[in-house]
Amino acid sequence: MTMKELTVVKIGGNVIDNPSALDSALKQFASIPDPKILVHGGGAIATELCTKLGIPIVMHEGRRITDVETLKVALMVYAGLTNKQIVAILQKYACNAIGLSGADGDTIPATRRNPEPIDYGCVGDVDPAKINAVMISSLLGRGMTPVFCAITHDGNGNLLNTNADTMASCLAAGMSSLYCVKLVYCFEKAGVLENPDNEDSVIPIMTHERFEELKKSGVVSKGMIPKLSNAFFAVDHGVQEVEIKGCDDIAKGMGTIIK
Amino acid sequence: MTMKELTVVKIGGNVIDNPSALDSALKQFASIPDPKILVHGGGAIATELCTKLGIPIVMHEGRRITDVETLKVALMVYAGLTNKQIVAILQKYACNAIGLSGADGDTIPATRRNPEPIDYGCVGDVDPAKINAVMISSLLGRGMTPVFCAITHDGNGNLLNTNADTMASCLAAGMSSLYCVKLVYCFEKAGVLENPDNEDSVIPIMTHERFEELKKSGVVSKGMIPKLSNAFFAVDHGVQEVEIKGCDDIAKGMGTIIK
Repeated sequence: MTMKELTVVKIGGNVIDNPSALDSALKQFASIPDPKILVHGGGAIATELCTKLGIPIVMHEGRRITDVETLKVALMVYAGLTNKQIVAILQKYACNAIGLSGADGDTIPATRRNPEPIDYGCVGDVDPAKINAVMISSLLGRGMTPVFCAITHDGNGNLLNTNADTMASCLAAGMSSLYCVKLVYCFEKAGVLENPDNEDSVIPIMTHERFEELKKSGVVSKGMIPKLSNAFFAVDHGVQEVEIKGCDDIAKGMGTIIK
Repeated sequence: MTMKELTVVKIGGNVIDNPSALDSALKQFASIPDPKILVHGGGAIATELCTKLGIPIVMHEGRRITDVETLKVALMVYAGLTNKQIVAILQKYACNAIGLSGADGDTIPATRRNPEPIDYGCVGDVDPAKINAVMISSLLGRGMTPVFCAITHDGNGNLLNTNADTMASCLAAGMSSLYCVKLVYCFEKAGVLENPDNEDSVIPIMTHERFEELKKSGVVSKGMIPKLSNAFFAVDHGVQEVEIKGCDDIAKGMGTIIK
């Protein structure tokens, strides 16, 4: 039996912070054939709101510690403001979006991360095998396009903050039990660049071996390492193809293909 | 053909502001047989957030004017924080809640209120005939319990703030094309009281005639008048029964029956 294709697109913070870029990216996303799913990150609004409310931002090795007050801000900004604005724009472009967190319909259950050795607070880790693929598929089957913010829950009444790249990877992996899944990470560059200052230096194909070489040589560093690790996780867990590309090119063009 | 029963419950601000009362009300709501829908109001959190952010609260004849900044707060608090907290608690009580605004799945489209004679800003009016009963029914048919915050959209990318009592009334009326609908308004009193200081003075049955008499005599006044008008609107638009009762008694007991 041939499985139906499903496209999972993740859009990041930079495009969310720019209303006209967001509108244009969502117009392109709306043009992708159904079924499809969007996962969105946070952007600077949550940080701004924390500052206005006097909530300190506590980091450990580049990762934010989510205390109860920070989680409330994440719920307000990611699940409320950003998620509903994206849904309303997609509806304008005739895409029947339905905004969800992982708690909604119990679609993406998570486990609170072990507080040892570092307590990251209200942070959830997702297991692709526990993605509620049947429930999500029933929404897709009704012509709806789920739009996920990176909030999950533990089933005991607790909401959890989750990394949006990781959530997209686990969601794509989980959905690959029912669909032939393509995962697209959209961000501010045209793909993984050989030279970060040259947008024309996109690396067309990224393999495990190439990734290890580029990490050693320092060409791939910082935020690109976890993004690529998430991409490889998806490929290693049933996802057909992962692409990293620019937000201007969601529905067309080529970025870096991970396989 | 006998239509299936559907219960639509609206819970208000007071219960949302009190975490233990909210948990207890949601535990009772979870015990109501499926299919069911929850509509929730806002509570004091939005007002508190406006104050913290320095957003002035502008009222006209007891109604808030929703400018763009106030709408963002409504999105953050109603669609984000409150909606997802309710969903997570219901999931804990084995109720498969899915939190929605009217924009999600285009379930509740609205029209921005005419700015003449008073411009209420980003405020939407709902027409029961335009409720997407088929889409909502498909979620109910999958065992999900929609949890609506009182946010709607105009289909052109604009989100709108809507009165939660009115939204519940229109939603119940709209769903009555497919279901035999019972609407329950839960609030801080045990029902419509003959004497506001005596919780034992619940008026068991409220008819149009009785409502007119009680308005004239001043027994029913202030916030109870629009609540009862919404209740009568539902009864006049196909809803089988409307009940106004206490939040402690969502799944049991008797309040005021409107017919």
